[in-house]
Amino acid sequence: MKSGLVTIKDLARELNISASTVSRALKDHPDISKETKRAVQELAERLNYQPNAVALSLKQRRSNTIGVIIPEIVHYFFSSVISGIEDVAYDAGFNVIICQSNERYEREVANAKTLLASRVDGVLVSISKHTTDYKHLENFQNNEVPIVFYDRVVPNIVADQVIIDDFDAAYRATRHLIDSGRTRIAHLGGPMALLIGQNRKDGYLKALKEAGIPADENLIVEADSFEKARMAIMKLINQKIKFDGVFATNDLTAIGAMQTIQKKGYKIPDEIAIVGFSDGRFSGITDPTLTSVDQHGYEMGTLATQMLLKRIISEDDEYPAETKVLNADLIVRGSSII
Amino acid sequence: MKSGLVTIKDLARELNISASTVSRALKDHPDISKETKRAVQELAERLNYQPNAVALSLKQRRSNTIGVIIPEIVHYFFSSVISGIEDVAYDAGFNVIICQSNERYEREVANAKTLLASRVDGVLVSISKHTTDYKHLENFQNNEVPIVFYDRVVPNIVADQVIIDDFDAAYRATRHLIDSGRTRIAHLGGPMALLIGQNRKDGYLKALKEAGIPADENLIVEADSFEKARMAIMKLINQKIKFDGVFATNDLTAIGAMQTIQKKGYKIPDEIAIVGFSDGRFSGITDPTLTSVDQHGYEMGTLATQMLLKRIISEDDEYPAETKVLNADLIVRGSSII
Repeated sequence: MKSGLVTIKDLARELNISASTVSRALKDHPDISKETKRAVQELAERLNYQPNAVALSLKQRRSNTIGVIIPEIVHYFFSSVISGIEDVAYDAGFNVIICQSNERYEREVANAKTLLASRVDGVLVSISKHTTDYKHLENFQNNEVPIVFYDRVVPNIVADQVIIDDFDAAYRATRHLIDSGRTRIAHLGGPMALLIGQNRKDGYLKALKEAGIPADENLIVEADSFEKARMAIMKLINQKIKFDGVFATNDLTAIGAMQTIQKKGYKIPDEIAIVGFSDGRFSGITDPTLTSVDQHGYEMGTLATQMLLKRIISEDDEYPAETKVLNADLIVRGSSII
Repeated sequence: MKSGLVTIKDLARELNISASTVSRALKDHPDISKETKRAVQELAERLNYQPNAVALSLKQRRSNTIGVIIPEIVHYFFSSVISGIEDVAYDAGFNVIICQSNERYEREVANAKTLLASRVDGVLVSISKHTTDYKHLENFQNNEVPIVFYDRVVPNIVADQVIIDDFDAAYRATRHLIDSGRTRIAHLGGPMALLIGQNRKDGYLKALKEAGIPADENLIVEADSFEKARMAIMKLINQKIKFDGVFATNDLTAIGAMQTIQKKGYKIPDEIAIVGFSDGRFSGITDPTLTSVDQHGYEMGTLATQMLLKRIISEDDEYPAETKVLNADLIVRGSSII
């Protein structure tokens, strides 16, 4: 074995451990035991191991730019994610370029091509509602461009991901209404075709069940916009279906419900309490202010970017893909306090 | 003169007109007279003019990507601009990559470098609030990357631009309040250091002056956020300074004013009428709905992109820089109707 040409793989073979373990041992990674680190160090010194100059220079041949594919910039949640991404990236000396799919599959494919052509060092992706074919995303990995998914993930692709526990957030939002004495809680939900709509409804149902409150199909309505909420609430009131709480799948829906309820002469929160699910911008400007779920878009952006930078910078990029699940917080405001 | 090597400049010299006129005549541009077109066509045929193959291939060596520098994606106005940009660009077969300066000069400089490195064919730029040095932008032109400014422009750089007539919009907003019988109109304005704040206040003052209403300094307050508006209105009411109208420099400010006024027991619009200046998302969800200025972000994006694509695709890119001024529309809603 010629000195100076010893590789991580040589050390691994010699010690009968994986290259990834050797790499992490050399970097003093906390997951690696002291014994292994010592063995690796000793062998590296004995064989005069030098970090692979070719590999290093490849790593250094970076554009220092990361690409972001985002469904719709107009949503406050996604623009918060971008803020988180940019703060971490710029701090680390990386630039960020953003492409918007606008919820269209074709644009997402074009976005992926553009980012590859721009020679980004890695990408952060949240897929469009209509993406069911993932070749354009697999293409990043084929070109050794690491990918981290955030919020909307692809089950078929092995990659790091950061997601939010929608089910748990909906459960806690409903639970809060029950804890404050409500028993007839309407759910204005999203389309059941989307996982997000299903998860939030399931969380709502779990909270009811746990409290021994039977679910009433009359109180579960697919209504996920300001206008749909107004119509749905009007219909409930006109049909004399009683309710004392509303859990809405997003804040605009909650605000539509709130206005219609107030217009019909009911007091919030005294007679009917309202909880939304955050778009983030509206909850502070309603009267009363709106209890809502904070989805932590900024944290999601920072976390996803840290995971991506680790992939980009790490000499060893073969460690297993990680999934991080963020818990959303319920922020209690005037619309649900007794 | 060797046949086949005749250039646009040769035709121009022969006819004693500009190269730009020749180029546009060959493309049947509507600005060029029939006589000139005929003369150019005849000479082109006689000398066997062929479109410059080298120039064409240079033009064809495009990345088909345009870059966008945007101050803050979180603002509805700017995200509307992006929608307009993308719709025009994708229709024309161009991709769009977006960089956010987040109102920071250093990031804007980094953005410019990143876009140049990504070999964009042209850029759309709205500068940050803190940009006073423009070398990073001039650098685009030095590298023959055409630039179109939108909304926030740079007076020192000769380039196409699309702007909104803020002065006129503010004038019309105030005029509408006067026309509906208001004479004590408060102005919640932006910082006077920004051109936008100055222009809107000037439009307000012009409308008052024209109607013979003396400006009252007590009614002009620097307050451009939800919280500042609440405090400013509370102060006016507590000091017993009477007012029957409010023109606010943005919608969030208008909503803060609206809530405080309602909380103090005044009726909107009966006792006090309110007009905002659009962030675009809130005007439909207040009660009453909010009269506001529509800034036409989407149109601004489409127009700026059309101007940029013209520069990119045109064989002749020496035509003079153009400035397009969009008129904002006042959308009258419940907060100012008697």
